[in-house]
Amino acid sequence: MNDQAIGICDSGIGGLTVAKEIIKQLPNENIIYLGDTARVPYGVRDKETITKFAKELVNFLVEKNVKLIVVACNTISATCLTELEKISPVPVIGVIQPTVDEVVLNLKSKIIGVIGTRATINSQSYENKIKKTNPTINVVSQACPLFVPLIEEGFTDHPATKIIVKEYLKDFENKNLDALILGCTHYPMIKNMIQEVVGNTIKIVDSAKPTTLQLIKVLKSNNLLCNNSPPTRHFFFTDITPQTEKTVKVFFDGNFPGKLEKINLT
Amino acid sequence: MNDQAIGICDSGIGGLTVAKEIIKQLPNENIIYLGDTARVPYGVRDKETITKFAKELVNFLVEKNVKLIVVACNTISATCLTELEKISPVPVIGVIQPTVDEVVLNLKSKIIGVIGTRATINSQSYENKIKKTNPTINVVSQACPLFVPLIEEGFTDHPATKIIVKEYLKDFENKNLDALILGCTHYPMIKNMIQEVVGNTIKIVDSAKPTTLQLIKVLKSNNLLCNNSPPTRHFFFTDITPQTEKTVKVFFDGNFPGKLEKINLT
Repeated sequence: MNDQAIGICDSGIGGLTVAKEIIKQLPNENIIYLGDTARVPYGVRDKETITKFAKELVNFLVEKNVKLIVVACNTISATCLTELEKISPVPVIGVIQPTVDEVVLNLKSKIIGVIGTRATINSQSYENKIKKTNPTINVVSQACPLFVPLIEEGFTDHPATKIIVKEYLKDFENKNLDALILGCTHYPMIKNMIQEVVGNTIKIVDSAKPTTLQLIKVLKSNNLLCNNSPPTRHFFFTDITPQTEKTVKVFFDGNFPGKLEKINLT
Repeated sequence: MNDQAIGICDSGIGGLTVAKEIIKQLPNENIIYLGDTARVPYGVRDKETITKFAKELVNFLVEKNVKLIVVACNTISATCLTELEKISPVPVIGVIQPTVDEVVLNLKSKIIGVIGTRATINSQSYENKIKKTNPTINVVSQACPLFVPLIEEGFTDHPATKIIVKEYLKDFENKNLDALILGCTHYPMIKNMIQEVVGNTIKIVDSAKPTTLQLIKVLKSNNLLCNNSPPTRHFFFTDITPQTEKTVKVFFDGNFPGKLEKINLT
């Protein structure tokens, strides 16, 4: 038993798709979420910049005395998870390994698609981890840098988004994929559109559930689970505009379990 | 005569449309450009965050001993120009007043359209400055937050961009506008598409020329012009990826007059 909070960090608000699943599965855990909305998006930036920013997120959560950190961001997990583990005194869980562990089960064609930000795709993190599990699996990757701004602007069901989804995903047509990994925590917001474009036979996997299962495993094995009633939940952001508040509500289908708190990191 | 450099700052690479015009009109001036590509875009963020970041840009240029600073960014000019003037020991020129001074000439319908980032439009900076010049002018404004990511991704001539342009600009239809101000230094990259959507009779005005004319006026009146042969030109960015290099070249039609130099602001 440990009533310290679970720390969750992300480059912005995308990680809320993971936070939502964690809250659903672990309703009595204290939560501290940190989204770097003042510097989002990370996925278009260089490794050095992403690492510098991500270390500041981890340091903030460590100072808040969290018992464990979930990096609810594919870009950070792909770019610098090892560097974050080095500076953190508490366990750090990324989203990529748990997602890979789920997706490699029950394959037929042994072809897996991965979409994500440019930084995530360029890192080849998914590809390397999948091939480490099974070198005979083929991985087809595609960066989709416009998905994040389109989602943040609420264009989740818009004809322009559909055109861009079709264009980015055209290389997945006729590829006989086993599964498509949504390698960005924003992308579940347009999962239906992506499913429609790639076809119903392709299994679409995102990070929220596998990462939460991995989190529960680590909490159990380290005897860190707890049962707060009621639990405390803090959602810190480095920048808050009316659009941030609007999009956060959309991510939680109108039932946002807390309030937005502004903090400065630097 | 003063051979110190002209400082130009922007949230990213959009200000290069202004830098290009300055270099064209003042080919023998030394130039120091600073683009905050590690934290772009500013236009979706809150005033407090934009002001903090913009002050860091100005402090950097002041330390580089520039003779004058051009804020080649509508978002910064709209949000915190006065605060920047307070901390700068050298003159600071924004893009909004020079653009307003040009656009209010020779009006017929006395209706002016303004498009820009959400921060620029919310600030009502264009509206206030136009009405100060002539209170009988009507201003119709529209935030277009997706234009910057679409342009940065090279979707300047893409059917999805056309759909989004049409949607954002639908309120300008049948409005009998005298002129439409491109209140963001990125937007000249899709000027042709915007012109096509609003119709050929509407004059489209961007910040590059009026700001450069204002710059020349201030340099002359302060006896700050110079004639370096060859001039030095530095282009500093807080983050450089292959995509940055690609987009910078597109902004200069392949003739980029320098090289990209990486710096850290914090």
